[in-house]
Order: sequence, then C-alpha cells, then structure tokens
Amino acid sequence: MVKVEFHFDFGSPNAYLAHLVIPEVEQRTGAKFEYVPVLLGGVFRLTGNRSPGESFAGIKNKLEYERLEMARFIERHRITSYRQNPFFPVNTLTIMRGAVAAQILGVFERYVDETYRHMWSEPKKLDDPAVLREALLQSGFDAERFAELVQDAEVKAQLLDNTERSVARGTFGSPTFFVGDEIFFGKDRCATSRKRSLQRVAADGKTWM
Amino acid sequence: MVKVEFHFDFGSPNAYLAHLVIPEVEQRTGAKFEYVPVLLGGVFRLTGNRSPGESFAGIKNKLEYERLEMARFIERHRITSYRQNPFFPVNTLTIMRGAVAAQILGVFERYVDETYRHMWSEPKKLDDPAVLREALLQSGFDAERFAELVQDAEVKAQLLDNTERSVARGTFGSPTFFVGDEIFFGKDRCATSRKRSLQRVAADGKTWM
Repeated sequence: MVKVEFHFDFGSPNAYLAHLVIPEVEQRTGAKFEYVPVLLGGVFRLTGNRSPGESFAGIKNKLEYERLEMARFIERHRITSYRQNPFFPVNTLTIMRGAVAAQILGVFERYVDETYRHMWSEPKKLDDPAVLREALLQSGFDAERFAELVQDAEVKAQLLDNTERSVARGTFGSPTFFVGDEIFFGKDRCATSRKRSLQRVAADGKTWM
Repeated sequence: MVKVEFHFDFGSPNAYLAHLVIPEVEQRTGAKFEYVPVLLGGVFRLTGNRSPGESFAGIKNKLEYERLEMARFIERHRITSYRQNPFFPVNTLTIMRGAVAAQILGVFERYVDETYRHMWSEPKKLDDPAVLREALLQSGFDAERFAELVQDAEVKAQLLDNTERSVARGTFGSPTFFVGDEIFFGKDRCATSRKRSLQRVAADGKTWM
C-alpha cells in the first residue's frame, strides 16, 4: 500500500478542502494518507514565504482568481461544509500542538476531524483559550489534559521538529503532500477529478457557475 | 464550436509549454483556441504583479517546486523542444507588437510558431534588433516590413488595447485562458491529462522521475 503524507495546519482553508476530498482519493487510489501536523507559521518563518492573503494583497485580480478556484474546487467536489472563518487568520500554535497531543492520547483522527469542523465548518476563534476549551468539551475531549499537554516540552519540540523536517524536504506552504520524496503542493494536486477543468468547459461550452 | 482565448506573451516559458499542448486539447475537446497577443510587462504594470522569478526569489523551496512542476509537465506531455533561454528575461515589446503586425500581414499563426521556436526551442536574444532581424529572415518573413509595422501607431495601440482589455477581464499573469467570461490561469488548467498527478503516483507507488 502506498503512503501519502499530508503535511497540514488547521489554519489553511485549502488544506481543509484537501482534507475533505482525501477519503475519495484513498478510495480511488488505494493509497493511505498519513497526517503530519506542521506549523504553517513556522514554515513561513523558515522559508520567508507568506500567506496568499498577504502575498497577493496588492495584486489586482489575483485574490479574486484564488477565490474563483476555491469556489470551483468546492463545486467540483460537492463540498457543503465549508464556511469562511470570520476570525481568519487564527493563530494555530495551540491547536497544532493539540494535534501532537492527540497523537499521544490516541485520539488523533477524531481530533483532526473535529478541529477542522470547528475551524471551517462551524467556524470559531480557536486561538481564544476559552473558545478552544468549549470546542474541545463539545467534541468530547479531555480539555484539561489537552491544556496540560500543549504546554509539554516534548509536544512543543515534536511540532517544531515536524515543521523543520518538512521544510528540509521542500515544504513552503499548505497543503503539501509527499509520496516518498516526491513533493506535491496545493489542493489541486490532490483533486479527484478534472471534470470541471478548462477542458471540460471547452468541450461542452458551458461556463462554470 | 467552443472558442478558447489564449492570452499569450512570448516571454513566458509556461505560455510556451501551454502553446505546445494546445493542439492536443483542441483535438480532445473540439474547441478552437484563438491566440490574443498581450504584453506581459503591461499586465504586470497594470496589476502590480511580478514574474515568478522575482516574486519567489527570496522564498526557500518555492522556485525549486516551480521548476519541478515544469519538469513534470514536460515529461507528462513528452515535450522535447523546450530549452531554457539563456538571455531570459527577454524584453518582448517588439516581438509582441510583431504578433499584431503578423495579424495584419496574414502570417499570424506561422509567426507565433516561429517566434516561440526562436524563444524557447532554439533560444535567442530576441530583444536585440539584429538578432530579431536574422530570426525573422531565417523564418522567411519580410523583416523590413515587420520593422516598419512594429513602429506603427495603430499596431502599438492594438497591443496596448489587448493588454488593457485582458486585465479588465481578470488577467494578472501568463498563460491566461478565457472561455467566454470564464478565466483560467496557468498551464495546468490547460493540461490534457492527469496521468502523472499525485493520484497516479499514489495509485502505482512509482515516484516521478
């Protein structure tokens, strides 16, 4: 079985959209995706990169196009659970350390699903400790234990180590995937179908929306 | 028959790679691509955008990834005629005005093929007037007539007008495609196959190269 590493941070909406289609890709390819928590802020610091929102802020038409491609992806994959987070950008340091904590606690997969839901489906200000605590409790997690573990030196070091290793392998943004040493950047590299590509529009003459 | 507008500048290697696969896309979709000369330098001036080489220069891993995606595209489409132009970036003002002149002279399609060849297959410093003249002659064009027309006020105005209209419709870089009002950016939006995508690598477990 082929393993695909998905280097993710909850702060990236494009990583969330990729997360939603990964089950389809697993089914289609037989590959297994393994989630690796990395801190996108750390990736940016280590590479000198910035978020699309910052990088493209002064460029006419560019962010509009990014939004269009996001809408196309959402339509193509019939995604209904994405909401823009009104608190964006949310500092993800604690919830990403939480992902490492969840690995230790053996609740990683459910933590990822739930935290993504709290970020991008029923969006909350998860960098507010009270809001985070409430979200954890709502999802049935031990909020006290998480609060302890995200302050644990080993948890902190693990997230930093994941992030540094990822950048050493070529990461500069999110979402990033690895198949062995092979790097793929962006939700479109992970997409399940090109049905609504330019080709498709060109073939049937129908415009997008 | 569906019409796809291809807004191109000879200076963009990604536009050249798209140019090479357009015949496959036409055959596959039945669509007809119509080439529209635009000045990429003008697009950048009007939008505040910059070339990938400039934008990504200070970002670790980013340009390496761009090069990897270029190599993947070249391999996927079995392209053998691409050479890096050692004089890059070449100022394309004259050869883009030349494209408008070629429309007037009724030799547009051949001019596009030949000029792309002189830029990216047998690369030359086409912003040197003597080199350009030699290339035009080698391709069997009337170099004197071109030299006159690229100074013609109407030719200059046409290229500017194409560029301004393109930006008004959403263009910020190259290559850009339109199907009606629908905009698509990048050679990957025009690609003929996802055979060598992450999915494919994930399904067969073989890495890229």
